[in-house]
Amino acid sequence: MNTKIIEPCDGAYQYPLLIKRLLLSGQRYAPGNEIVCADRRYDYRELNRRIARLANVLRAAGIGPGDTVAVMDWDSHRYLEAYFAVPMIGAVLHHVNVRLSVDQIGYTMAHAEDRLVLVHDDFLPIVEELAGRLPLVRGFIRLSDSDAVADTSLNSLGEYEALLDAASADCDFPDFDENSVATTFYTTGTTGNPKGVFFSHRQLVLHTLNMATTLAAHDGVPLLRSQDVYMPMTPMFHVHAWGVPYVATLLGVKQVYPGRYEPNRLVKLYREEGVTFSHGVPTVLQMVLNCDEAKDTDLGRWKLLTGGAAPTEGLVRQMSERGIGFYTGYGMSETCPLLSLTYLDARQAELPAAEQVALRMRTGVPIPLVDLRIVDEAGREVEPDDRGVGEVQVRAPWLTQGYLREPEKGAELWQGGWLHTGDVASINRDGVLQIRDRIKDVIKTGGEWISSLLLESLISRHPKVANVAVIGVPDARWDERPLALVVPAAGETLDSEMLKRHLAQFVASGEINKWAIPDDIRFVESIPVTSVGKVNKKQIRERIAQSATL
Amino acid sequence: MNTKIIEPCDGAYQYPLLIKRLLLSGQRYAPGNEIVCADRRYDYRELNRRIARLANVLRAAGIGPGDTVAVMDWDSHRYLEAYFAVPMIGAVLHHVNVRLSVDQIGYTMAHAEDRLVLVHDDFLPIVEELAGRLPLVRGFIRLSDSDAVADTSLNSLGEYEALLDAASADCDFPDFDENSVATTFYTTGTTGNPKGVFFSHRQLVLHTLNMATTLAAHDGVPLLRSQDVYMPMTPMFHVHAWGVPYVATLLGVKQVYPGRYEPNRLVKLYREEGVTFSHGVPTVLQMVLNCDEAKDTDLGRWKLLTGGAAPTEGLVRQMSERGIGFYTGYGMSETCPLLSLTYLDARQAELPAAEQVALRMRTGVPIPLVDLRIVDEAGREVEPDDRGVGEVQVRAPWLTQGYLREPEKGAELWQGGWLHTGDVASINRDGVLQIRDRIKDVIKTGGEWISSLLLESLISRHPKVANVAVIGVPDARWDERPLALVVPAAGETLDSEMLKRHLAQFVASGEINKWAIPDDIRFVESIPVTSVGKVNKKQIRERIAQSATL
Repeated sequence: MNTKIIEPCDGAYQYPLLIKRLLLSGQRYAPGNEIVCADRRYDYRELNRRIARLANVLRAAGIGPGDTVAVMDWDSHRYLEAYFAVPMIGAVLHHVNVRLSVDQIGYTMAHAEDRLVLVHDDFLPIVEELAGRLPLVRGFIRLSDSDAVADTSLNSLGEYEALLDAASADCDFPDFDENSVATTFYTTGTTGNPKGVFFSHRQLVLHTLNMATTLAAHDGVPLLRSQDVYMPMTPMFHVHAWGVPYVATLLGVKQVYPGRYEPNRLVKLYREEGVTFSHGVPTVLQMVLNCDEAKDTDLGRWKLLTGGAAPTEGLVRQMSERGIGFYTGYGMSETCPLLSLTYLDARQAELPAAEQVALRMRTGVPIPLVDLRIVDEAGREVEPDDRGVGEVQVRAPWLTQGYLREPEKGAELWQGGWLHTGDVASINRDGVLQIRDRIKDVIKTGGEWISSLLLESLISRHPKVANVAVIGVPDARWDERPLALVVPAAGETLDSEMLKRHLAQFVASGEINKWAIPDDIRFVESIPVTSVGKVNKKQIRERIAQSATL
Repeated sequence: MNTKIIEPCDGAYQYPLLIKRLLLSGQRYAPGNEIVCADRRYDYRELNRRIARLANVLRAAGIGPGDTVAVMDWDSHRYLEAYFAVPMIGAVLHHVNVRLSVDQIGYTMAHAEDRLVLVHDDFLPIVEELAGRLPLVRGFIRLSDSDAVADTSLNSLGEYEALLDAASADCDFPDFDENSVATTFYTTGTTGNPKGVFFSHRQLVLHTLNMATTLAAHDGVPLLRSQDVYMPMTPMFHVHAWGVPYVATLLGVKQVYPGRYEPNRLVKLYREEGVTFSHGVPTVLQMVLNCDEAKDTDLGRWKLLTGGAAPTEGLVRQMSERGIGFYTGYGMSETCPLLSLTYLDARQAELPAAEQVALRMRTGVPIPLVDLRIVDEAGREVEPDDRGVGEVQVRAPWLTQGYLREPEKGAELWQGGWLHTGDVASINRDGVLQIRDRIKDVIKTGGEWISSLLLESLISRHPKVANVAVIGVPDARWDERPLALVVPAAGETLDSEMLKRHLAQFVASGEINKWAIPDDIRFVESIPVTSVGKVNKKQIRERIAQSATL
């Protein structure tokens, strides 16, 4: 189109959207607010100096623009510093998923072409095992929570804090193309090797600004404002801890980094540091709520954002009863991540807490700038009647533009200019999403779709059920039939008939059809989960398939 | 720099930052919230349909990408619709400053190369007079607040509402380069013709997101959130009404457009429509506070943002006493406009209202992404001690990249990659700005600088002073000396000696030096103001110069 394009005059500064710019405001608004991690606490002025020191350390280690730096750490102030320093010198930050198998970690580090590794003592054995397979790595920087120096065979350039102490706090951060890659990390695909997603400076700045607006501006969702205190309960390697550390830094919010997740310590930090806002997957929130420390602690100040999996009604009710402000977000590794968030309008925000439970369990409303549609199998957009279901497809300024060096997989993700999430959802009159299932987890039976997530949710309402997973298994007559794996609550006994009677009530109430009740219900001791705590249906399917052939 | 640049895979959507995207969220968050103007009220769904209708009307009138469309209207729903529809078809929206002289209006419309004019009946006489001088204009669309059809000699394409009624509510808004010019308007320079500034889609989207974050996220400044009700008291032609209509639309906020500014009507609308947030220059706020309707109205719900000129202490105290939340912003036509805003930290926000007055009178803290420095005459950044003064120089993603077709003037504005604001300021330990004066209004006497604004502020504290302006006049011995023009309060008499004694107390308190007291104090009936309500020092200087030679 023949629009009139801006012509900058001589001397005009064309401002690239770079991560360094997110640091400007925090130190002005709240120079004295603290970053806290274990015994260490320092303010925003010092954060800026430490980021400059880290950048100098990285440069001294030979890291330049375009090089990739891996981090393997628990959630810490060091990781926050790396969120800024690595991309600010034009390098790429590889958030290593330390919960993958050693082989998979090795695959991702080789595939991302890591040149330098910042590694916590706890993960030294992994990199020692991998070292021979990572010929591009020039050296390792050790991250340590104690003064004891762990022995290592690695080419260690030194310990993080000692290196920072010795480095200059002056550093010039140049401008460069805002479309430069800033971060990369790997999704655990259901088949084959993990796939690398990547995000540019521009994308992260836009995600940060937009998330800041979303978290602050809605009266029904006042999740994060300048006087909040933030503590993540999602690993920092997991989709930039949902992007919140960048938002918190933009606003100059006090930040508390908990290291390894131990529920009692998390609650202790909540209490002692005045934490007001955290986020995590439902399983982590559940553990935190049920730990000893939580029993006698008033949790009413806490605002919790969940995502990554559907929260159970039990979890949401429990939070509501304890006075916790509870919100649901939706996104994925490919989307930076935030796409939608609980939104309560003026009327809904005034409802009694119990009546808000159902609203807060839904997947939320697309946030500003996100263009989202739900497309059925026939390629039509579904009606906002909460009945029609289809795949969620999105456009936003912060979506991965493919998979690292795997163009053919990128072209599956992106079709016709829309990112295909692989999630099945409906949308209601108020524009609120409800994710129903992963496309690949939907059970197709007799020409109809059954949501495995819905069945899991209904089964989990039985008081004697501790955990449940439902998958589809091949069926000669119906194409697929649901199969449920159930973990009974401690000390309880259950049988299939009890659960079928339990499910029959939801047939009566119209929530499911009769043919959705699984014929095959098996009792197990545990349900396998993925490295980020989600039910690992891929593994369940493999085990079931193997057991069928045994 | 050799960074790694994002390589989009096949099918990936590269999301340009276009104004159309700001419309996505409002209709989702608050489809039923209203846009109100006079007797007309409709919701966000209808706003979207009306924008599509207007776009179709514009296209039918032959407007295409790159064409410029002028709007001459009071603050209305129509103007809001034009804020979106014109740029969304790739055209440029020229906000005509209707307070300029007819000659200057004609100059700006010819210089901007306007092709179509949307003109309110009240301004028909102006465009009728100018029509012969605007050969590029293909037609006029009449904006009317009544059913009576005004006679006109112009080539009228019809009345706005009738044209919209007849147009389709379906419109395809294509993607195009985010660096396309979206808006243009003219600053009233102190010398020569008005200069045109221009802003791209990218710049306006970034300004909107950033302003939304700023207005919402700071607990000390909760100016605009989703459940607020917004009414501008800055003309919509004036720097996009400071950008707030875009922010309000992004958030789905109820918006009230008051038409012509009449203080009693503004207060009535505040009361009847539940307005919570407005902005205006100090003189407008003063008129509103002092009008009849305001006398018995509880104004405690109102949050008011001021800018464009320094608020007097009297105004701020008056607002504080009436319970009004009062905030000061800083910016200019060249900066889209927002650069800084009142920010109160946790401690300051808890202070008694009276103690907050001084904090709220200052010019605020630079908002996120704004890089700001104060440079003295020697080219050094001044210390944050509130004593050192220098010129404010800025970088931000939303600054005009020059002046329309006047590259040499652009190169004066932009020097070495910094936009030179022409404002003199200091900054305190807390990073809070205080604009002291315009560089050209500073009075240079005996090698020292006197702030004309400070003198005005001190003189205005005398109870018998209604208005005051101070300028520098040439002086053989001291280079310049201050000269004060004073308007006595109604029915009061004043003489120079009274004011000099009044000023002597500020010498005693250390606020000014003895040599800052004007020798020449003259009493006048009124002070000339510019088209946007600021004291017109250029005109005062001209008059004084003429009177000296007479």
